[in-house]
Amino acid sequence: MTDIQLARGVKDIEVEEKIQVNRVIKIITEVFEKYGFNPLQTPILERYETLAAKYAGGSEILKETFKLNDQGSRDLALRYDLTVPLARYVAMNSNLRMPFKRYEIGEVFRDGPIKAGRYREFTQCDADTIGSSNMLSDAELLAIASEVFSKLDLKFVIRVNNRKILDAILGAYNIPEDKRETVTLSIDKLEKIEVSGVKKELQDKGFKNIDKLLNLIFTNDLNDIKKVIKNQDGINEIKEVLKYCKLLNVKNVKFDASLARGLSYYTGTIFEIYLKNSEITSSVAAGGRYDDMIGNFIGNRKLPAVGISFGISVIKDALKNKYGKTVSQFYIIPINALEDSLKILQKLRDNNLKVDIDLNSRGISKNLEYANSLEVPYVILIGKEELKQNKVKLRDMKTGKEKLIPVTELILKFKKI
Amino acid sequence: MTDIQLARGVKDIEVEEKIQVNRVIKIITEVFEKYGFNPLQTPILERYETLAAKYAGGSEILKETFKLNDQGSRDLALRYDLTVPLARYVAMNSNLRMPFKRYEIGEVFRDGPIKAGRYREFTQCDADTIGSSNMLSDAELLAIASEVFSKLDLKFVIRVNNRKILDAILGAYNIPEDKRETVTLSIDKLEKIEVSGVKKELQDKGFKNIDKLLNLIFTNDLNDIKKVIKNQDGINEIKEVLKYCKLLNVKNVKFDASLARGLSYYTGTIFEIYLKNSEITSSVAAGGRYDDMIGNFIGNRKLPAVGISFGISVIKDALKNKYGKTVSQFYIIPINALEDSLKILQKLRDNNLKVDIDLNSRGISKNLEYANSLEVPYVILIGKEELKQNKVKLRDMKTGKEKLIPVTELILKFKKI
Repeated sequence: MTDIQLARGVKDIEVEEKIQVNRVIKIITEVFEKYGFNPLQTPILERYETLAAKYAGGSEILKETFKLNDQGSRDLALRYDLTVPLARYVAMNSNLRMPFKRYEIGEVFRDGPIKAGRYREFTQCDADTIGSSNMLSDAELLAIASEVFSKLDLKFVIRVNNRKILDAILGAYNIPEDKRETVTLSIDKLEKIEVSGVKKELQDKGFKNIDKLLNLIFTNDLNDIKKVIKNQDGINEIKEVLKYCKLLNVKNVKFDASLARGLSYYTGTIFEIYLKNSEITSSVAAGGRYDDMIGNFIGNRKLPAVGISFGISVIKDALKNKYGKTVSQFYIIPINALEDSLKILQKLRDNNLKVDIDLNSRGISKNLEYANSLEVPYVILIGKEELKQNKVKLRDMKTGKEKLIPVTELILKFKKI
Repeated sequence: MTDIQLARGVKDIEVEEKIQVNRVIKIITEVFEKYGFNPLQTPILERYETLAAKYAGGSEILKETFKLNDQGSRDLALRYDLTVPLARYVAMNSNLRMPFKRYEIGEVFRDGPIKAGRYREFTQCDADTIGSSNMLSDAELLAIASEVFSKLDLKFVIRVNNRKILDAILGAYNIPEDKRETVTLSIDKLEKIEVSGVKKELQDKGFKNIDKLLNLIFTNDLNDIKKVIKNQDGINEIKEVLKYCKLLNVKNVKFDASLARGLSYYTGTIFEIYLKNSEITSSVAAGGRYDDMIGNFIGNRKLPAVGISFGISVIKDALKNKYGKTVSQFYIIPINALEDSLKILQKLRDNNLKVDIDLNSRGISKNLEYANSLEVPYVILIGKEELKQNKVKLRDMKTGKEKLIPVTELILKFKKI
């Protein structure tokens, strides 16, 4: 073949990167399960009709949906998120016990324009609680975020707001309902374009006398806001969320009245998590409460819901401790002692050490070069001389230091790492 | 919506099933990594051209390939296996260090006829060693299988053969080269239709004087076979594989001259793993050596390869110890003591226990019923009375027995499970 290429907009997640991705997924999965979320796997192929339903992802996303047919010429599509398949699953299983707490990690597909860092196939990682309108459910998701980023040793801040507060503020300053979305979108840009930028953008959009409104939002004071707005539901909800956060030991959570989140289906709590002291400036996790979407999708039930989504790929990029190019801790080089080497190899593996071995009967220097290119931390050289002493030669590939060590001692030394 | 359905031929892997699937994947992944295999993730979307290449999966499988287009109207397809994407990856990365040992677990798609237990979207789980013609590579894969099924507490047998042996036997009995595939396919049915069935099928196909040939194959004696055939390469290879298997402690491995394996791209060692004392009669893992496929695909290199594939779904079906409907070990019911309950909840989670809590402020009996429907093993009731004694009430949901226990004791008791 002359021309072997990837499809446009997709990528291979190569070994070094995939090791990191798996580490992130492992930590997130463990935390999800500690919080009582169970795994669910929905298919990548869905009926086009399901993904195009009125209350699913909206018409914008449909333009980016990959369509295809099966041999029966039925209209199929590749899922563009994990939320619509969840809604479809809940709709098809009316006997599900509520609350239903599930997580799903899987590939989703969007046939959008190709930009740097944007792919047509990428991993989503969601946890959602369906069937509970209790703010404890919202707080549990923030507790999960707090624990995940603490475990990954990343400094973070959780910004939290409530759609009802933003809406009540805009109401108090007489922004008509049909203009609230465009005002919200400008306010949401605070982090990027700062107060002056937001002010200018709103003036350009034709809004006047907005200084008081913006001041109220940007001072972030719940008591000040409380005095101005009529509907106190949002205030009450966020206070409850913050109270539960405290009891659940959630770290670095801050009320942020300017937070808006793009998706129009959010109805209450909204939140975004950002890293501090990091090159990553986009959010690394986000979510919120969407009490209408699933019920509307199903058509005849009220079903409150709240969810969080982690950006696996961007979190992986933020990790400081990289692992190297192999999962192997050891690489064995047999020196005219293959049979004994295989016995030792299997003894190490029986003790759950990750051990690779020369498969191509190469010489020592070629083997060392191979182990070095893979960044294996330790090489074990096994020769007749060492075996006579019941020992092997352990070489630290970083320092180049070698020492003779009995196999039993080697196992004891590394078993716990 | 009136009509919410899954696409035809796909399924949701619901919580109870997915918990089991994850358990199987976890064990297999751990064993793969112990043997020095590294994770790689190739995309689900490939160029149609790649999957349709001459030396890829063959023309039969192309009929079952899902085709689609992106907005640039490029011909794309959903991968039908993980081996062709691996070949594509190796072709695109000519600087890869050999041997390259990788594993991949992911969804593949085939638009075939729908039968019971056959899906259009399913999980493949492969480990392959590229760039080593050493029989130790083949033996390592059998060692992995042996360890995986031992860890899953399943009784198994590994049937192993070599394509070169079968070929040499057919040659020795003057079966012309162009007839060997059809004879092989009949011989491969031994397990299903027994000796008499194979004999009858071959007679129906027009083969005469095949008694000696079949006797030689079905007696499974390497020494007898050795005397009859000319090319001894297969014999030497399988002896080497069996020698390494012994050194690597591979259990229940048996030479089986009747094993053929369907796929025509195998060139040497072939193997299939079956369960004993199980309702599952199909193979649960299989693989072999395919020294030509990747090199042919790339076009200009010799690249020996050997791989194993585990049937995740069928292995999951074979598991005896089912886990129940939730990962949660505990479900907390606060009785007018929410704040204290939340503190205890988080203390348990801090000790890595998996704990869920009432989110809907329900009464005790409704909560017990909910916990029971989820099959949570233990419920923790937390009320003012218990708290006064610095204790909680632990209820074993299987026996219904309850006892008062201090939180610290509860943690010590369950931390290690």
